[in-house]
Amino acid sequence: MARSKARKNAFYAQSGGVTAVINASACGVIETARKHKDRIGKVYAGRNGIIGALTEDLIDTSKESARDIAALRHTPAGAFGSCRYKLKSLEENRREYERLIEVFEAHNIGYFFYNGGGDSADTCLKVSQLSKKMGYPIQAIHVPKTVDNDLPITDNCPGFGSVAKYIAIATREASFDVASMAKTSTKIFVLEVMGRHAGWIAAAGGMAANEECDLPIVILFPEVPFDREKFLAAVDQKVAEYGYCSVVVSEGVRDENGKFLADQGLRDAFGHAQLGGVAPVIAQMIRDNLGHKYHWAVADYLQRAARHIASKTDVNQAYAMGKAAVEFALAGKNSVMPTIVRTSNRPYRWKVGEAPLSRVANREKMMPKGFISRDGFGITKRCRDYLAPLMAGEDYPPYGKDGLPKYVCLKNVPVPKKLPDFELK
Amino acid sequence: MARSKARKNAFYAQSGGVTAVINASACGVIETARKHKDRIGKVYAGRNGIIGALTEDLIDTSKESARDIAALRHTPAGAFGSCRYKLKSLEENRREYERLIEVFEAHNIGYFFYNGGGDSADTCLKVSQLSKKMGYPIQAIHVPKTVDNDLPITDNCPGFGSVAKYIAIATREASFDVASMAKTSTKIFVLEVMGRHAGWIAAAGGMAANEECDLPIVILFPEVPFDREKFLAAVDQKVAEYGYCSVVVSEGVRDENGKFLADQGLRDAFGHAQLGGVAPVIAQMIRDNLGHKYHWAVADYLQRAARHIASKTDVNQAYAMGKAAVEFALAGKNSVMPTIVRTSNRPYRWKVGEAPLSRVANREKMMPKGFISRDGFGITKRCRDYLAPLMAGEDYPPYGKDGLPKYVCLKNVPVPKKLPDFELK
Repeated sequence: MARSKARKNAFYAQSGGVTAVINASACGVIETARKHKDRIGKVYAGRNGIIGALTEDLIDTSKESARDIAALRHTPAGAFGSCRYKLKSLEENRREYERLIEVFEAHNIGYFFYNGGGDSADTCLKVSQLSKKMGYPIQAIHVPKTVDNDLPITDNCPGFGSVAKYIAIATREASFDVASMAKTSTKIFVLEVMGRHAGWIAAAGGMAANEECDLPIVILFPEVPFDREKFLAAVDQKVAEYGYCSVVVSEGVRDENGKFLADQGLRDAFGHAQLGGVAPVIAQMIRDNLGHKYHWAVADYLQRAARHIASKTDVNQAYAMGKAAVEFALAGKNSVMPTIVRTSNRPYRWKVGEAPLSRVANREKMMPKGFISRDGFGITKRCRDYLAPLMAGEDYPPYGKDGLPKYVCLKNVPVPKKLPDFELK
Repeated sequence: MARSKARKNAFYAQSGGVTAVINASACGVIETARKHKDRIGKVYAGRNGIIGALTEDLIDTSKESARDIAALRHTPAGAFGSCRYKLKSLEENRREYERLIEVFEAHNIGYFFYNGGGDSADTCLKVSQLSKKMGYPIQAIHVPKTVDNDLPITDNCPGFGSVAKYIAIATREASFDVASMAKTSTKIFVLEVMGRHAGWIAAAGGMAANEECDLPIVILFPEVPFDREKFLAAVDQKVAEYGYCSVVVSEGVRDENGKFLADQGLRDAFGHAQLGGVAPVIAQMIRDNLGHKYHWAVADYLQRAARHIASKTDVNQAYAMGKAAVEFALAGKNSVMPTIVRTSNRPYRWKVGEAPLSRVANREKMMPKGFISRDGFGITKRCRDYLAPLMAGEDYPPYGKDGLPKYVCLKNVPVPKKLPDFELK
């Protein structure tokens, strides 16, 4: 055990909204670290993200079998628990940073891998500065993840490709359904999708239709201020041409005054605020103005947890980002994030790149204007060329005899605590 | 062509809400008929169900390639269009029956295959009586289909197994998601599922949890009058034990007075009726009383159109029902429906049975009491043993390079009309 002092343990945690493939990144981190036992000791996972570090609630991933770690690759959501918790600045809450150092020191942690989106990159950036600002030697690497696809620099974000695939398939399947029903019943189907600020996920709904499969789809992007008359005219035209219409609406669509459409001032008998999403609002608007019978769906968590129909590209990239993060750490890097660099569209090729965290944290990437069609209700060929390879390929989980996918539940054995309790503010 | 007068053409149509596998039944009908060209001439599909027969809007399926007909097996929804249209009784609308006979005679139709649920079985029964009551020789066979699984006699209905699989998987995946988020954010996930009268689909949500995969799930069945206090206590207990809870709620759940829970008297600023489903009502009730943050989803058409994750058992049975219907016709039968007879649970074995339409039409099969757990919020082992084989196996469609399933769109070439127009009442 002479080398055990030289080698450091690693901390890994998941942050923010989870995805169908964030555990594939965890799998990449842990499997790669296990291949470098001479340099990296144990991988301790934070239970519920950075909260696990602050409260010294660590999980000893070395207690998990190779088989269970491998199964993370096909298991959705966050196996160690996630959190919505943003570190304050060093000036605002120095005590938190001191605590992090105490925990890292107590458990000989020299590598910090944080798996999340823009807010999490900010947390990771702050931790990466512990070396310089507080003299504790740590290498902090951010592992990108977000269904919203809104991180800068990287061509795309792990988690997005699978949601895009799910939404495109759901839109195609539901459109086939409403097409069957349109003659005597439902003529309008409205699907509400995630994406409060950026329309990447809504755009994926447009992939349901193409030259081989002609379906009438109207998309409402958060980037395009809602124009009621233009929208109703677009739907009316589709119904006239096809006999039915599907609408894919982003939860974040707003009117010209920036007010969320979902906020319709609905009240129940007790004066409680409205409960619905934007899908029923849009559906009812069509009914009231054009008179068509409708159905609507809100996919919510189903879309981001749908590991059963994850994109193979996405799973591979999520794993690769976790692997690259460990390799970056072994190469002595700090305060960086591996990225996905697209090198070719046809055939699709990509490689791992690198971005400094200071350029990633707290920045959102919107849809380019050239991705939305001129009428504001569809996607362009450029958008299709961008999306298609991210949704390509299937990566099915194994199934049991009951017809259900076999997702792993880890043992999540806690690391014995060495420090007094710490209270979160 | 000496034999062409002896052999009769067949009429096939799809009716009611469509499913992920109703086209697999169409595939079974058409492929089997094509193997018996000495007895059955062409298969004419009704465009939009029985309406296609009444308006002489027939589709010549012989214009479709063997490959496209085979692709129906993996294509969701109704390839020929469906309808919600119930024939009145002979006494009430004799003109409709006379018209049917005119169309059948004009196109030499001697076989009538109708693919639908309880209402459609009634239409099929009425057509089957044309021979006796009006002297037109026709053999009418009903092909069972309904996601609601509420047809009598048959052990289960094609269409149900795939919805059950979808809902069980969605519940498992979303439960993994909310488990990850529960520490600092969402603790409650509510999924609204179909089933206005019978809780078969809601029951499938219970399959998400089992001995290997322990998840907190509370089910609200339409068969169990909603008890607010008991429900909140059940959710509270799950959150106390697991830190989170998933609720699967049937759209048809009612309070003790028989009033739909979804009907909360919500009004917008203009006094329009509420827009939401029952999921947001349940979610808000939990928030108001237990204080937990929630997410909710309404699966709607996504659940019944989800061919991408159809059950293999279901696809096989849907095809087999279509095939058996043609074989019944060739055997000279009339006014019957092929059924699924379960002969063994472990291993699961089934065979094709037969039921007279008079015993099928307009009857609903509810969940047996022994399938719902004593507290009213879960399923029993007997229910699990019933459901598991129906959800078993995957039957993936082929995918394109864009990551989307390749569903077929038929040419649907119309048969030239021979009769004057007919106006539907």
